[in-house]
Amino acid sequence: MIAEIISIGDELLIGQVINTNASWIAERLNSIGIRVKQISAVSDSKEHIIKSIDEATERADMIIMTGGLGPTKDDITKTTLCEYFHTSMVFNEDAYNNIVKIFTKRGFEITELNRKQAEIPANCKPISNSTGTAPGMMFKKEGKIFISMPGVPFEMKEMMTTYILPELQNLVKDLVIVHKTILTQGVGESFLSEKISDWENKLPENIKLAYLPSPGIVRLRLSAYGPLSNVQGEKIKITNKLNEKIEELIKELNKIIAEYIYGYDNDKLEEIIGRLLKEKGKTLSTAESCTGGNVAHMITSISGSSEYFMGSVIAYSNKIKENILGVNVGTLKESGAVSEATVKEMAEGIRKKFGTDYSIAITGIAGPDGGTEEKPVGTTWIAIATETKIKARKFLFGDSRERNITRASITALNMLRKEIVN
Amino acid sequence: MIAEIISIGDELLIGQVINTNASWIAERLNSIGIRVKQISAVSDSKEHIIKSIDEATERADMIIMTGGLGPTKDDITKTTLCEYFHTSMVFNEDAYNNIVKIFTKRGFEITELNRKQAEIPANCKPISNSTGTAPGMMFKKEGKIFISMPGVPFEMKEMMTTYILPELQNLVKDLVIVHKTILTQGVGESFLSEKISDWENKLPENIKLAYLPSPGIVRLRLSAYGPLSNVQGEKIKITNKLNEKIEELIKELNKIIAEYIYGYDNDKLEEIIGRLLKEKGKTLSTAESCTGGNVAHMITSISGSSEYFMGSVIAYSNKIKENILGVNVGTLKESGAVSEATVKEMAEGIRKKFGTDYSIAITGIAGPDGGTEEKPVGTTWIAIATETKIKARKFLFGDSRERNITRASITALNMLRKEIVN
Repeated sequence: MIAEIISIGDELLIGQVINTNASWIAERLNSIGIRVKQISAVSDSKEHIIKSIDEATERADMIIMTGGLGPTKDDITKTTLCEYFHTSMVFNEDAYNNIVKIFTKRGFEITELNRKQAEIPANCKPISNSTGTAPGMMFKKEGKIFISMPGVPFEMKEMMTTYILPELQNLVKDLVIVHKTILTQGVGESFLSEKISDWENKLPENIKLAYLPSPGIVRLRLSAYGPLSNVQGEKIKITNKLNEKIEELIKELNKIIAEYIYGYDNDKLEEIIGRLLKEKGKTLSTAESCTGGNVAHMITSISGSSEYFMGSVIAYSNKIKENILGVNVGTLKESGAVSEATVKEMAEGIRKKFGTDYSIAITGIAGPDGGTEEKPVGTTWIAIATETKIKARKFLFGDSRERNITRASITALNMLRKEIVN
Repeated sequence: MIAEIISIGDELLIGQVINTNASWIAERLNSIGIRVKQISAVSDSKEHIIKSIDEATERADMIIMTGGLGPTKDDITKTTLCEYFHTSMVFNEDAYNNIVKIFTKRGFEITELNRKQAEIPANCKPISNSTGTAPGMMFKKEGKIFISMPGVPFEMKEMMTTYILPELQNLVKDLVIVHKTILTQGVGESFLSEKISDWENKLPENIKLAYLPSPGIVRLRLSAYGPLSNVQGEKIKITNKLNEKIEELIKELNKIIAEYIYGYDNDKLEEIIGRLLKEKGKTLSTAESCTGGNVAHMITSISGSSEYFMGSVIAYSNKIKENILGVNVGTLKESGAVSEATVKEMAEGIRKKFGTDYSIAITGIAGPDGGTEEKPVGTTWIAIATETKIKARKFLFGDSRERNITRASITALNMLRKEIVN
């Protein structure tokens, strides 16, 4: 089962919108054993959409489209599909009722444009949209499946999750793919590659390794491909075998680089920490300078974080470090704001003030300005405080403000994770 | 001049990495008048890469590729291009010296894999990589241009900015495109569309309008297409004329929806606010509950924000609201944490404690849990305090935690912007 994703919208081609939909869809399709051959972003043009569908149909069994279903004039996907399948538009009662429901809830008036959104090509199976006004559409032609969904990410996701993925799952019978990703922190790609080269060279033919670096993190993705199988029940057996082999490989890998591994697959450090703190009934606070609230933002992006996260002080100015966090004036004068002494006092200050079991403190020079010869841009001190001790470490990140903030935040969360685990 | 972007990497097709590179490149190319016809993401497979280059070559004058240049075994772009152009690899002294320089600076040892990164196809013009180890490559064949760059975003960006874009700019002579984006906040897509429909219907043939909604923001993009011109100097004239027409249209639009417009093109609310505060020599602090530090994170993502941003208290627990922000116990008991009274005390508390001219306070129910009939998930109070007054407003956002945090943050920043401007 091979799929292609076509993302429709000029905004993608002039670079105004990042195509997060395609990667989300690809991830979901892969998870049920549907391989994505290609992702194409094309313009809001009838000819271009039709040409890309034709091309994709040559390569894939399934074409998943997003975008161009909005109520406005630049949205032409629906009329283009209507023409492509040589059919006409019909008014769909259910879709209209859904629009009425959504608009009533929001207290908006229904416009003529919204009413038009309830029209769909006669030959399609409508897919109901519980979070928006544009219905999705599913077409079948010559054994191939064509799906069109809105480009609004949460509407598309809802449609995929509740309707499309369960429907597609029934169709996948022939190919087995298993992915497993090992997440590492605090080590570079080249160094990692050298370190695990013996292990990598011994990987079997049907297992592929990919290095996926991002600021602060290198992910190692293992992809295991099983043989084709049309036999009922055979698929589960093959999947199990591939999973076993992968588990075995990961065990070996842990003998080499355990210190860098913090999780697997879609694990997030902020989720892992949340889980650990909940399990142990412990609480956390943060004191941030150069990361400017990013650590707190990451922690609170997890639902239920109010159970263990009490809050944070973002001390961008030295006065706040003194007055709110209780850092000594002398410390700031003698050692400076970016120093071991200051970061330790920040960690201890916030932990006591907020009455938490753990605290994280970060101070550094995010850049691009503020660096000196002694403390260049990227210099960052991170401390973790517990009831009995404070551990601080110095890091030298890079030149980019954005990446320095990200790397400092991730590194701090991983330091906390290690502290809680030990 | 038509370009296509080919993003190479299995990680894109299994959805593990979002293709931010392609949108960045597309935006940059459009800005110098190069239109992007299609963006394709393809796998780390020789056959697939070659096929996609062949297809793109039929449609475009210029193929821009990223990815697959890393030091590890899954990176095959360079060898594939070597084969595609029927040439062989040669060792490049400059590229090697660059690798040595970078590794020495980082204090890393040079591995054999890194040395191999200095090898490039004999027929290409190498593009130096000042922030990473893999050189870029530029090929020319039958009047078409082929560019290959690393997939690491900051390496690619540096290469594009310092070398490739200036080079390409000289080649663009025939087509004129002008884009202008109007940024609106606090109004839905359908409502906006109805409101400006007369204006939209009167747009000239060569000007296209697109609606680009994202949480809290709807962007309106005008794209004006000029006639082809090969005459020297003619291009500037056409560009000026298109720009004038767009300015005129925007003036008319401002008569209809001025209250929703906060900026243009790549303006960010956090940047606009920073500019305004700097101009007036004023300072800012924030007190965040449900946004968990996201507002502070947005503000401090702007370089130089330490000039006007003093810091923040993230009061996730009520105890912190009381003890640090000075919210009355009575207020919390009677009105609850998500209420007008509490948000006003939070705003006043942080402003006084941090000694700033302005403050933002936010308290709400981000969800998915914590909602009640009276205060459902999405209920959010936002306050802006100045020396003389406190303004508070209630909002009912949606069901998604992530979007509620984003919408609350953006809405708060825009409320502050309006307060400073007035």
